[in-house]
Parts: sequence; structure tokens; C-alpha cells
Amino acid sequence: MLYNDLSVNGKGHLAICGCDAEDLAAEFGTPLYVLDEDMIREKCRTYVDAMHEYFGPASAPLFASKSLCFKGIYPVVESEGMCVDVVSPGEIFTALAAGFPAEKMFFHGTNKTDEDIAYGVDSGIGYFVVDNQNELAVLDRTAADRGIRQKVLLRLTCGLDPHTLEAINTGRVDSQFGVPIDTGQADDFVQAALACENIEVAGFHSHVGSQIFESDSFNRQVEILTEYAAKVKEAYGLAVKVLNIGGGFGVRYTEKDPVIDIPARIKEVSEHLNAACEKHGVSFEAIFMEPGRSIVADAGTTLYRTGGVKEIKGYRNYVTVDGGMTDNPRFALYKSEYTVLNASRADAPADYECTVAGRCCESGDRIAENISIAKPERGDVIAVLTTGAYNYAMASNYNRVPKPAMIMIKEGTPRLVIRRESYADMMKNEL
Amino acid sequence: MLYNDLSVNGKGHLAICGCDAEDLAAEFGTPLYVLDEDMIREKCRTYVDAMHEYFGPASAPLFASKSLCFKGIYPVVESEGMCVDVVSPGEIFTALAAGFPAEKMFFHGTNKTDEDIAYGVDSGIGYFVVDNQNELAVLDRTAADRGIRQKVLLRLTCGLDPHTLEAINTGRVDSQFGVPIDTGQADDFVQAALACENIEVAGFHSHVGSQIFESDSFNRQVEILTEYAAKVKEAYGLAVKVLNIGGGFGVRYTEKDPVIDIPARIKEVSEHLNAACEKHGVSFEAIFMEPGRSIVADAGTTLYRTGGVKEIKGYRNYVTVDGGMTDNPRFALYKSEYTVLNASRADAPADYECTVAGRCCESGDRIAENISIAKPERGDVIAVLTTGAYNYAMASNYNRVPKPAMIMIKEGTPRLVIRRESYADMMKNEL
Repeated sequence: MLYNDLSVNGKGHLAICGCDAEDLAAEFGTPLYVLDEDMIREKCRTYVDAMHEYFGPASAPLFASKSLCFKGIYPVVESEGMCVDVVSPGEIFTALAAGFPAEKMFFHGTNKTDEDIAYGVDSGIGYFVVDNQNELAVLDRTAADRGIRQKVLLRLTCGLDPHTLEAINTGRVDSQFGVPIDTGQADDFVQAALACENIEVAGFHSHVGSQIFESDSFNRQVEILTEYAAKVKEAYGLAVKVLNIGGGFGVRYTEKDPVIDIPARIKEVSEHLNAACEKHGVSFEAIFMEPGRSIVADAGTTLYRTGGVKEIKGYRNYVTVDGGMTDNPRFALYKSEYTVLNASRADAPADYECTVAGRCCESGDRIAENISIAKPERGDVIAVLTTGAYNYAMASNYNRVPKPAMIMIKEGTPRLVIRRESYADMMKNEL
Repeated sequence: MLYNDLSVNGKGHLAICGCDAEDLAAEFGTPLYVLDEDMIREKCRTYVDAMHEYFGPASAPLFASKSLCFKGIYPVVESEGMCVDVVSPGEIFTALAAGFPAEKMFFHGTNKTDEDIAYGVDSGIGYFVVDNQNELAVLDRTAADRGIRQKVLLRLTCGLDPHTLEAINTGRVDSQFGVPIDTGQADDFVQAALACENIEVAGFHSHVGSQIFESDSFNRQVEILTEYAAKVKEAYGLAVKVLNIGGGFGVRYTEKDPVIDIPARIKEVSEHLNAACEKHGVSFEAIFMEPGRSIVADAGTTLYRTGGVKEIKGYRNYVTVDGGMTDNPRFALYKSEYTVLNASRADAPADYECTVAGRCCESGDRIAENISIAKPERGDVIAVLTTGAYNYAMASNYNRVPKPAMIMIKEGTPRLVIRRESYADMMKNEL
């Protein structure tokens, strides 16, 4: 099994945290998002502990809300000592509704509107991660109106290519995010920020990309940011207090993906950071990272029921399920690979080659192509692993399919955390 | 201008059906879906009239709900004489809520669950488009339980490749949809259907693909289906009454796409059909087509406000907007091209090369790459054309972004048809 919360029980069914997947499907319906709360907490602690140990006690991981934003996640990550990153007023609204403290929020976004900025300031957001000079000007004015001084990080790009997918690569120079150091434009950005009376520049943010398994790009990133911090100290008298290095490490979607020793990687980054600080004569009060996928992806499993098998002679076999790109668009968007199991026959050999297709009238609606699972019959429960991140968060109502329910399992006990959307819900704003 | 409902008014603003885009953005907010109801009605009439003329009075176009399903669309298409295709209970629910008659619905879907089938039968759906033998068995049983005989079309694949995008190509042999004629499996399907006491096989359905500009694949498709109808008449004594040839013709996303004379294309298909009928000694009572995109795409425009311009020296210029892949995921999914205008400076030369990026923290969140528009400033209204189909229908809440409002303009008067989703709406099912 890919994860140690999965097992096969006496009935030959897949069990998640000891709960029979067939029973979960019967009780809560399908498609069903299943989250292992204990695993999420363990991941949070791994980051919190390692970051405290290697980056100091003021450092912290921020949970990247965009990977899985719903009301029930915030109490979990808060109680484990995480801060959060939010990318929209919608995420702020949800986190606030869940009681998450605004001062522990970092507000991202490349196109914050005037209303978004006002909402963030009025909510008492800890740090704005300012993407560009347009935002800077509006934020300064908005803070002035309220008579406050807003703490910010300036988002910079380091020009690194972490060799991940183009579609989830946000750190190169040619990016819609942040302001590049390489072109000299970051200097103008810093000077403009320093000229804003109602803005306090606490530090820099940069993000090299997603689903990164090596420390290399983080190591190089902290060196670049530290060197740049030394430069702005010298040139503009700004002593940068904090660095937010974005990201989070990759997760295992299939057996091909490596297992990562997160504390060891963070230690390695800290060594590069410390060496760079010594070399350039600067120091930082706190380092932040933004794991999202890395916190919740592998704690998630999606359960479907299959409508059956279609064998196209001479071509291939299709297994269709009662969900698909509506609850998990990652294959449609990125051709992402997943590990799929027949949860109803978890003890049978996974020897049936097939493509798992979703229920939408769209040929791109697939979950996995050319994989092997135990041959299913109509009604079997199909489990797709590592769906905790960017599944519920990216779900749509395409083909007028309601969003699935979600349960969280804590110490072996499942509880409903998101009700299944109804047909009427989808029509609620239609006049 | 790409469409004749667009103009530039005295203020130099884009006008849609005579309504100033700046005024619409100010009144209804952004992002905003704008639909030209008159254009939709004209498209409906084009299909209805041409299909009556060339295929006979019992023939009709079915509006493909999946392209744009919301309550307000059904009265429009119904009053213009369209039937509809629905692909899920959610679409049936919406159409019924809008008062659309169930007997004019055709129920598609490759993975209909037992509950879906029961819901369709209980709703009095006109035709099930049965995708496969799994569905056939459940439908027969369900109809038997209710003591009715359900009319169906059997979904077949003709093995045609219409040379469109892989992701929206649903007609080849190797498909999750329908049952192939080429492999002989359609024969088993037809025999199994004929053996079902509670199922009446009215005809066949097949779909060769989307965004097709030529008649060629339709012409060849009707020949294949007619030949196959003759074969099943001979072999199994089944006189097929209706053919549903799927699809609908392509629309113009950019100036590069051709203008289509829809009646002329339908006439051409009918000539191929008539010749094939004569050759094979069969005739049909009715022909159906399933235009969706072709009815609503070009009637739709999305209005955004730009957060500003980011010029990455030596690389490129980014214009960011307050929507993106959340309201229009088609660039992210298919790299679809769009025509983009600066609606606030519609009289200025479109000479600013840029990439239009959305508001999500995802580098794939783009609307158009390397296009030219009049250079915008923060606050300008940006118009993206041809967004009537597969935009609202595919919208997500990724990054916790609410779904936009939608207005319909009829005879120059805009009215709200979908309220903007609220932050609280997105959280409504979260416990």
C-alpha cells in the first residue's frame, strides 16, 4: 500500500484508518472524499517541529489554503501550530468563519482588487504578500484610510526552474507572479514599498514551484534571497526580518514517486540559509514555508462506485465511475497520475488493464489511463489515493454534477465535514 | 468585430447589444457573464428551421445542456422549438424546475447510476440515450418496476476521427462512450436491447466530436448509421425510426475560425442521408442533432476588471484580471484561443502585446497568451468573447473564488439571470 493508513480487511475490502471503504460508501454515498485527520496532524507536526528546530521558534509553516479550503480544516491546522496562506477574500472569509486568527494569515494573490485589499485590511490580516506595484499603491492608500501600518512581504521571483510541470511552475522569471530580481525590477519594487508610509516591509516571499522532491531549488532560493536581502540592506537600509520560501515538498501519487524525509530536507535548506547569512552578514527572525499538498494530499482518498466495464475489442477497457473531472480535474488539466484500487476486491490481484473514466460527457474526463486494478463489476467501490489536495478545492459542477460529501476520520471514527451538494443547491442563485 | 452584436460607442467603450460594457460592469460587478438572448434565439431558429426543412417536421435540434445549464436557458430554447439533451440528474432537475417538458429530454451519460436511471424514468424522460449494456439491464428492470416501456436510442460509435482536439473528440472506436459498430459489439448491444421487454429501441445515437467546421464527418456518419440501420433491419427485424447524429457545428473563437453557413451544412448532410437511405432501402421519421456550443457560445461575453499590467523586462507583459480559470477553464484545459478586447478603450489601437492571466495562484491560470489589446490600466474592463458555452457550466470555486453573476440582454435590456455567488454560499455545506 502507498500509505500506512490503508489496509485490506477480513472481507477483502480496502480499509482506510480501519474503516471499511464499502461501509463508508454505503453510509455516506459516493463519490466521497475521505480525509485521514490523524495523518494531516502528523504532517503538520512534522513541518512545525522541523521548522522550529532548524529555522528557530518564530518560524512556521503556513497551510496553503488553496490546496484544500473548507471550514473544518482550519481548527485542525491551527491546533497543530500552523499559520495559513490565503489567496482570496473567499479563503479569508472561510478561515475567519472557522475562528482562525487573522493575524496568522498571509494574504497572497496576483490580482487583488480594491475590494479584496480593503477586506484583507479590515479583517486584520497578519501579512499581505504584495505581488506588484499596482497592489502596493492601493494597499498603502487603504491602510492610510484606516490609520494603520500594514505588514507585508514583497513577492519576488528568483528565476529558478525547479524542473517540475510547466503548469504548476511559478518561480521562473517569466511569470505572472511577483517581481523579478534578475531584471532589476525588484529594486524598484523595494524602493516603492519603502516609500509607502503605511506599509512595513517585513520581508520577502518567493515560490519556486510545486511537487518538488529535492532540496536543490530551495537551497539555491535561500541563497538568492539572502544575497538580495544583503543588497537591499546595503542599498536602501532595509533590514529584512522574514523570508517566506513558499512551496512545500512533493507527495507520492504513485509508487514511482520517492518517499521524502521532510525534516532532513528542511535541515539541508537551513544549512544553506545559515551559510548564506554568514557569507552576506545578514540574519532573519523567521522563515516561513507554505506546504498545502504536502499536508493534505496523501491523507485524502476518493471513493467512487463503478457503473461497470466497457471492453472495446482490440483497443482497451474502460471502467467508468460516478465522479471524475468534476471532483478531480487534475488528470484533465495536467495528466496527473494516480494510484487506483478496487476497494471492493482489495485482496484480488490487480491484473485488469483499464482506463478509469468519469461520468461527464467529455472524452478528457479520466482519472487514470492504462492502469491495472482488480476487475470490477457494476457497483464496486473504486478508491483513488492521494486526492486530499486540489480535488475538493478545484471541484466544479460541470455536467451539473453536485460536489461530493467529505468525511474526516479521527482515531478510527469518521464524521461528516462537508455535506453532499444537492441539485437545488446548484440552482440557488439562478433566477 | 467578431460578432455583429458588438460595437464601439461614443465613449470609446465596447457595447454589447448596445449596452456599454463599462456600465454593465459597474451595475452588475465583475467578473460578469453577459449573454445576448436575441442571438441565442436566432441560433435556435436557424437550427430548427433548417432541420425542419431538410430532415422533415418531426426532426429537431436538442440543446446540449452541458454547454450552459441554468434555469433561465430552458424557457428560451423551449420557446424556439428546441428539445434538450441532458447528461445528469442535475441537468434534469434544473430543466424540470424551469418547466421544460420531460418528454422533450434526451438523457445521456456513460455512467448512469441506478439512482440516476430511476430519477430519469420517474421524471418521464422522452428518450434515454443508452450508453452500454450495464445501463440497458438496469433501465429495463427499472422500467419494468414502473410498468412502463422506455423509449431509447442506443449510443454507437462510428470510428470517425473528425480531426478535432483529442480532449473533445468522442467519436472514435477507442472511446468511453457508446458501443462500436466496427468491432461487431454494436450487434450484441442491439440484440440485448431488443430482448428487453420494457425498452423500445427508437433509434441510434452517435457523436463524432465537437467544434467541427466541415460537414464531412457528419456526411460520413449518416452513411455509416444508415447502412447499419439497414443491417439491423435485415438481421434483427428492427426498423430504426430516428437517428441522433450528435454535435453541432463549430463557433468562431477568433478571426481565424471560419464563418459557417449552418443551413447549407445541414442541407449537405441531408443529401448524404437521403442518398444513403435510398441506397440501403431505409427511411427515418426524425433526425436529431445536439448543438450546444453552436447555440450559446458566441452569444456570451465575459467582462473582467484588470488589476493592472506587469511588464517582465526581456520576457513579456502580463495583464491580470479578477477572474480566469475559475470562470473559464478552457485555456487551462485545452489551450483554447479567445478574442480579448479592452472594453474601456475599444476605440484605441490593439497594439499592446500581452498574456492575460487570471487571479488564481496557479501559473496555468490564463485566458489568452501573446495577444494584442489596447494597453489597459488597473480598473479597465476587459472583454473575452465567445464565452457562452463551457464557461459557467465548467466554473469552479478554485482559490475560493465565487461563481460570477450572469445577465441576459434582450432587445437592448439587460436582466440578471444568475446572482453572483457569495462567500457564505461556498461554505453552505461545510459543517
